[in-house]
Order: sequence, then C-alpha cells, then structure tokens
Amino acid sequence: MGRKTSYYPGAPPEPALPEDLGMALLLASARRVVEGHHLAVAPDAEGVSINWMGQDVSGATLGIVGMGAIGYRIARRAQAFDMKILYHNRSRRKLEEEQAVGATYCARLDDLLLQSDFVMLATGLTPQTHGLIGRRELGLMKPTATLINIGRGLLVDQDALVEALQTGVIRAAALDVTYPEPLPRDHPLLTVKNITLTPHIGSATHQARRQIMENLVESILAAVSGLPIPREVLPK
Amino acid sequence: MGRKTSYYPGAPPEPALPEDLGMALLLASARRVVEGHHLAVAPDAEGVSINWMGQDVSGATLGIVGMGAIGYRIARRAQAFDMKILYHNRSRRKLEEEQAVGATYCARLDDLLLQSDFVMLATGLTPQTHGLIGRRELGLMKPTATLINIGRGLLVDQDALVEALQTGVIRAAALDVTYPEPLPRDHPLLTVKNITLTPHIGSATHQARRQIMENLVESILAAVSGLPIPREVLPK
Repeated sequence: MGRKTSYYPGAPPEPALPEDLGMALLLASARRVVEGHHLAVAPDAEGVSINWMGQDVSGATLGIVGMGAIGYRIARRAQAFDMKILYHNRSRRKLEEEQAVGATYCARLDDLLLQSDFVMLATGLTPQTHGLIGRRELGLMKPTATLINIGRGLLVDQDALVEALQTGVIRAAALDVTYPEPLPRDHPLLTVKNITLTPHIGSATHQARRQIMENLVESILAAVSGLPIPREVLPK
Repeated sequence: MGRKTSYYPGAPPEPALPEDLGMALLLASARRVVEGHHLAVAPDAEGVSINWMGQDVSGATLGIVGMGAIGYRIARRAQAFDMKILYHNRSRRKLEEEQAVGATYCARLDDLLLQSDFVMLATGLTPQTHGLIGRRELGLMKPTATLINIGRGLLVDQDALVEALQTGVIRAAALDVTYPEPLPRDHPLLTVKNITLTPHIGSATHQARRQIMENLVESILAAVSGLPIPREVLPK
C-alpha cells in the first residue's frame, strides 16, 4: 500500500503548549527562580542580599521572533502582564490580530533587538533562520536583556551566546533547545551563571503528549482502513 | 516633633509585582523548570525520559486564596492562559470585577481546594488565616495539585505540607515564603523533591524597590517640611 506521511498538530510543526514553557522560562529567568531555589536550599543559606534583584516583567518590552500560532499565544499571555509587545515575522499579521494582543510589527529584526528587554525565539529552523542570533545581533540587545529560545537550537550561534553571557553583553539566557541535545558535558553553556536550561520539554505535558498519541492513532486507523489520512503530507 | 508612621505601597501591605513571581512559581513548578535545569546541566545528562512530564497550565483550574490587588492581578494573568479561575476571599468581588478576569467566587475554601489544579495563596497573615492550609485542607486537594504560596509562611502548616509532599497527597509546592526565613538548614522542606523554593523575593525587582525608596523619601520630605505625610498611618 506504499508509504503515507502525516504530521501531528500536537508535535512540531505545531507543538502544543510550548507557549506556556516560553512564559515559564521568561518569568523564571527574570525573577531568577533557579538561582533563588539554589540560594534557598544552600547548606549555608543566610537569607538573600538586599541587592539580589530580578528583572521586572510587567511593563517591560517583549520582542517575539516568529509570530506563528505559538508566538501569537505568547503575545496574548504577555499582554496580560502589561508588557509592551514587538514582533518580527516574515509576513506581517493583520491589523486586527495585532491589536487583539497589542503587538507592534518590526519589519527589521534589528529594531526589535534594540528595544526589547526580553527576546523570545519562537520560530522554526529554515535556511533563513539558521544562526539568526549571532554575535552582531547579541551586540544590538540591551545589556539588561534576556534571550529565550523555545524554537530550535540552531537559531542561535552558541559560541557567540556563551561569550555574550560571560562578558555581560546581555543579562541572561533561558533555553529549552540547544545543539546538540543534550549538550556535551564540557560545554560552557552548562556552567555560565546567568542561564536557565531545560532539556527540550516544550511539549512535555500530559495533555500535549496525549494529543500527539491521539493524532497518531487516528492517522494509523485511517491508513489501514484506506480512508483519507488527517493532516496527510503529500510528496512535493 | 513626635513620631509619624506611613506605609509604602511598594512594600507590604501592598507589594509591587509579587503577582509576577506568583505566575513564575506556578509555571516553573508546573513545567518543572528547576528540576529540568538540574537534568540539563547534570554531569551524566543523557537527555530527558519520554515519561518526564510537566503539568498543563493552559486549561487547568487555578484557585486563588485572597483576592486583593495581588490576587486580582494574578487572575488577570491566568485568564490569558485560558485557566479556569476560582477565588476565595472574605468578601466577594463585584460581578463586573469577576467577569473582567473570568473568576468564580467560592464562598467555602473547601470548594476551591477540591476543584483546583493550582492553589495560589495571595493573602496576608491574620489570626483568621494563620494555619489556613493544614493537613485537612491538603487532603482535600487533588493528588495532581500544586500549592503556591506568595503570601506569608504561617498561612501553611509546614509539617503537614512536608508530609503531603512526601506521601503524594499533593503533587508539588512552590513557596516564596516560609517560617522562619531562611528555614533551618536541616528542615525537610529543603530536601523534598517536588518543591520549588525562592527566598522571599516577591518584591525583589529594581522597579519595586525603587518605588519603595521613592515613597520613603517622599514621606521623609513631607515630615521634615511639616506637610501632610502621604499614606500616613494614624494611631488607633
């Protein structure tokens, strides 16, 4: 019967709920939750210094790179934090879609990088986005800015990111994706201080995984019954 | 000239931006950010098990205990995650205030505890709220539920909480406040697995602290000039 291919809306290219992980990483990095946890449980904890500060989220500027379904749901969440929202995307969203989440289009990525307190990468990997954030782009960001990546590891030049974090070019990074995954155990990203790492868990929730499996079963049943396969990917 | 007292809206009783930390703790605990970070940087990391799951936030039910300014701002943020929102408060909010954030009033705390996937304590400490969450209340919560406390440590019976976490009565806890602070270094809350702790950093952001200092300076200047003190607290 040959080979048929379908894709799962619960998995890439349309993962379920990575937008929540994106917001989790943004907030956790801003308020230094991992570092705070380490302070709280440290063998010699003596309380927290008055100078130990997080970054404000409410009122800050969020730049979303990639305004697909995930980027858009991040904008909607960030709007409820009274964040100022910028976005960069191949194509501009309709005006009413922008207004619904209070997002402003930046035709040039550079404009977004210059203005944002948080830069959220929520785009897929294509030849055009490979290495999208390199040394030049990191240099445009504010020294107080945070880079969050829930897209793909190869969107970012990791050597440039390590250097930017070590020398204070940007404040912090929070990454759910790297290359490779996991990183080699001697990779400097594992030991820089101002980083929050998660092991590619953007869709690691029960609801997301159940959705993936349900779609898989649905596709298999359709295929063995000779019925049209939902979300079939046809050869080009 | 005697003693005059004023309070700072940037600090308790009206702290600035603990609502963002509340959402940070909710999301970080649900998506297991601290644990994920430890997995990602562990010396022997081999990637994450397919069974390693977080809890869904979007679509889950949030129960907010204490619907003052902070609780209300949490509700507004949670609404953007499509959470179902319940709240318990001494007095019910106006209908239009409830509707604006999609919150449903629970006159009985028990009803909120029974239904919530996340219980957020955002209330102050009074004789009535001291020990509000004890063994009985934890027992009412779902075994998949998470307790988040950004109010005061004494709202929770910590011995009962330790037991509940150790025996799976609830899934997890995320606490910005404990008693005492910091906890004694041999306290079992420091070693239970399913906990996210931060060292009382609800208002540890530059904006919040600046606001506190500005209010302080304003009060001092008014007092030494013989002018009315903003937010003066008069003797009862």
